[in-house]
Amino acid sequence: MGTNDNEESVFTPWEVRGKVDYQRLMKEFGTEPVNEKLLNRIKKHTSGSLHFMLRRGIFFTHRDMNWILDEYEKGNKFYLYTGRGPSDHTHIGHIVPWIFTKWLQEKFKTKFIFQLTDDEKYVFADKLEMEDTYSYALDNALDIIALGFDSKNTEILIDTDNAKTFYKIALPVAKRITYSTVKSSFGFDNSMNIGGIFYTSIQAVPAILESVRQGKNIPCLIPHAIDQDPHFRLARDVLPKLGYYKPANIQCKFVPALSGPDGKMSSSNPNETIFVTDDPKSIKKKINKYAFSGGRDTVSEHREKGGDPDIDVSFQWLKILFEPDDAKLNKIEEEYRSGEMLSGELKAILIEKMVKFLEDHQDAREKAKDKLDDFLVKD
Amino acid sequence: MGTNDNEESVFTPWEVRGKVDYQRLMKEFGTEPVNEKLLNRIKKHTSGSLHFMLRRGIFFTHRDMNWILDEYEKGNKFYLYTGRGPSDHTHIGHIVPWIFTKWLQEKFKTKFIFQLTDDEKYVFADKLEMEDTYSYALDNALDIIALGFDSKNTEILIDTDNAKTFYKIALPVAKRITYSTVKSSFGFDNSMNIGGIFYTSIQAVPAILESVRQGKNIPCLIPHAIDQDPHFRLARDVLPKLGYYKPANIQCKFVPALSGPDGKMSSSNPNETIFVTDDPKSIKKKINKYAFSGGRDTVSEHREKGGDPDIDVSFQWLKILFEPDDAKLNKIEEEYRSGEMLSGELKAILIEKMVKFLEDHQDAREKAKDKLDDFLVKD
Repeated sequence: MGTNDNEESVFTPWEVRGKVDYQRLMKEFGTEPVNEKLLNRIKKHTSGSLHFMLRRGIFFTHRDMNWILDEYEKGNKFYLYTGRGPSDHTHIGHIVPWIFTKWLQEKFKTKFIFQLTDDEKYVFADKLEMEDTYSYALDNALDIIALGFDSKNTEILIDTDNAKTFYKIALPVAKRITYSTVKSSFGFDNSMNIGGIFYTSIQAVPAILESVRQGKNIPCLIPHAIDQDPHFRLARDVLPKLGYYKPANIQCKFVPALSGPDGKMSSSNPNETIFVTDDPKSIKKKINKYAFSGGRDTVSEHREKGGDPDIDVSFQWLKILFEPDDAKLNKIEEEYRSGEMLSGELKAILIEKMVKFLEDHQDAREKAKDKLDDFLVKD
Repeated sequence: MGTNDNEESVFTPWEVRGKVDYQRLMKEFGTEPVNEKLLNRIKKHTSGSLHFMLRRGIFFTHRDMNWILDEYEKGNKFYLYTGRGPSDHTHIGHIVPWIFTKWLQEKFKTKFIFQLTDDEKYVFADKLEMEDTYSYALDNALDIIALGFDSKNTEILIDTDNAKTFYKIALPVAKRITYSTVKSSFGFDNSMNIGGIFYTSIQAVPAILESVRQGKNIPCLIPHAIDQDPHFRLARDVLPKLGYYKPANIQCKFVPALSGPDGKMSSSNPNETIFVTDDPKSIKKKINKYAFSGGRDTVSEHREKGGDPDIDVSFQWLKILFEPDDAKLNKIEEEYRSGEMLSGELKAILIEKMVKFLEDHQDAREKAKDKLDDFLVKD
């Protein structure tokens, strides 16, 4: 990846390390900004409302959203596709694109395909066995269901369970991708295993699955975090050679780790991460202990100079996920910036919001266990 | 492959060009010769008889046959596995290992798994579409059934139909094979497509399929033509890392093309090849017109100096496949070598034998159409 400009900075679908420069990624990947004009166009189809992740620039860049809307306006409705590599329990970073996808599904009344790439996580993670990634796939599926997607319009596919579907459709994609291409797209060297080399063709499949099934071209829109872009850039190169549309993308920023505002939350350090299965006590402890603060060193300094919400992880989490109400968020920002609100108070707001959110989620997650069969596709 | 010592000589699982030096391959691949001692040991389990392909050195080399017999004698019975890349109709070269496999199955009363690698042929052949390779897979399956394998002890798997089985079991294999390894094992360069790179892990699956199914280690013996050795050498490296036995191999020479005794029959030139679906008229025409002869330029020279059965393709075909009776074959060899038998007479014998063989095969092939479901495995 061209984005690695020094040894400490890594940016691939499997690892993000160092500060992420979103403007630079957009330029490098050749994506378009999500601008006012596009937002106004989307509004026409969403009863004038916009999801807060659009209003706040969390979904900040895209490819071919205007084409998706052109086709939609002509009556050629798109479907939605996103996914998850099940290497652990779901953390709060993962659900950002899912929540946005659910909004899109509701507003545009579209089909949604969710892919659980247990094969990917198995071949890319030294320490995971197939039983691990498969059991995380089933575990993570509960989180999708818990978010309230409509089972009639939503399908969850697990790569190894649905291998008959995936492998067959991946082969024509794989035939048109050389080792040279994956080497440069993903920064592989010759020690990469052949499962990892093949994998990107499996991730391309849901982008054409509805077209394959229905025997005609159907537009596909993929909401996803920006680190998955190399897969979909490749898919956009190859799929037209097979007679399919290029999938469109709308891409979001990362939820930062507890330790600082610049990178991406990762499961590898549990203290940096809130899992959707964490209990209130651990949530409170992790935030109070580890959440990077934009506050000042002393209360009096904070009162005088104010805090910096732009680098404060608690504020960022409220903005990205836990405080959808703009008026409330603005009030918090103002009070924190002025010094009226202290870091501890800001953390307390986040903890309350997050505990409520995750308690509801965990209830829904329990109920989801009975609904798995309504969502999982049988090959 | 180290066997390419000049530009005209190629030896990979996908292409064999130039003269094949079997002794050298054996040395290079590190396989053992099928010698008297081994043949005597096999005889103990086959009522004292040996298949003519063993007696005549058609199956000339092996790995771990003694281990297979050790285990067999201890009551740990092996199963058989071989396969076919369905790129065209079956030709007479393909059925040599199948006929031998059938003999092994009968003598040792073992299970037999036959793999049709339609995925392989699709990703390796520029001109073939998936519909082509899949329809050849079904077509080639008829030839296996026509040879008379017992449906109770024989399974035919098609890679794309059985992708759920194949992909899942291939992943742990693929995880342990790097690009460097396939590059050197198969002579790939970076323009190889990622489907071709991944493929060898799919070909390894039947070598452990019975062990996976039964949850315990079961020895596997693979009768196959020597060009497939790189796949199985790799499988033998990797499978023990997953806790499985190394598969054993017993390997045969090629049926030479009509044009000469040195290489391998290939489907790419129909005039070099007899397909098992050819009618008597084309068989007669191809042999009379194209079969490379070990005879002399004139009848009088032939009567005087005799023919050379060692380079005569008609004689070689009788030896490898169409004249199982040693006494009859020896008589033909003697008469041809002495000059008593002319090339035309030798060809007439081959034509008669072959037409009879293929007419019977084609009858059985018609009947096989009703038996497909008894052999094909549903995932």
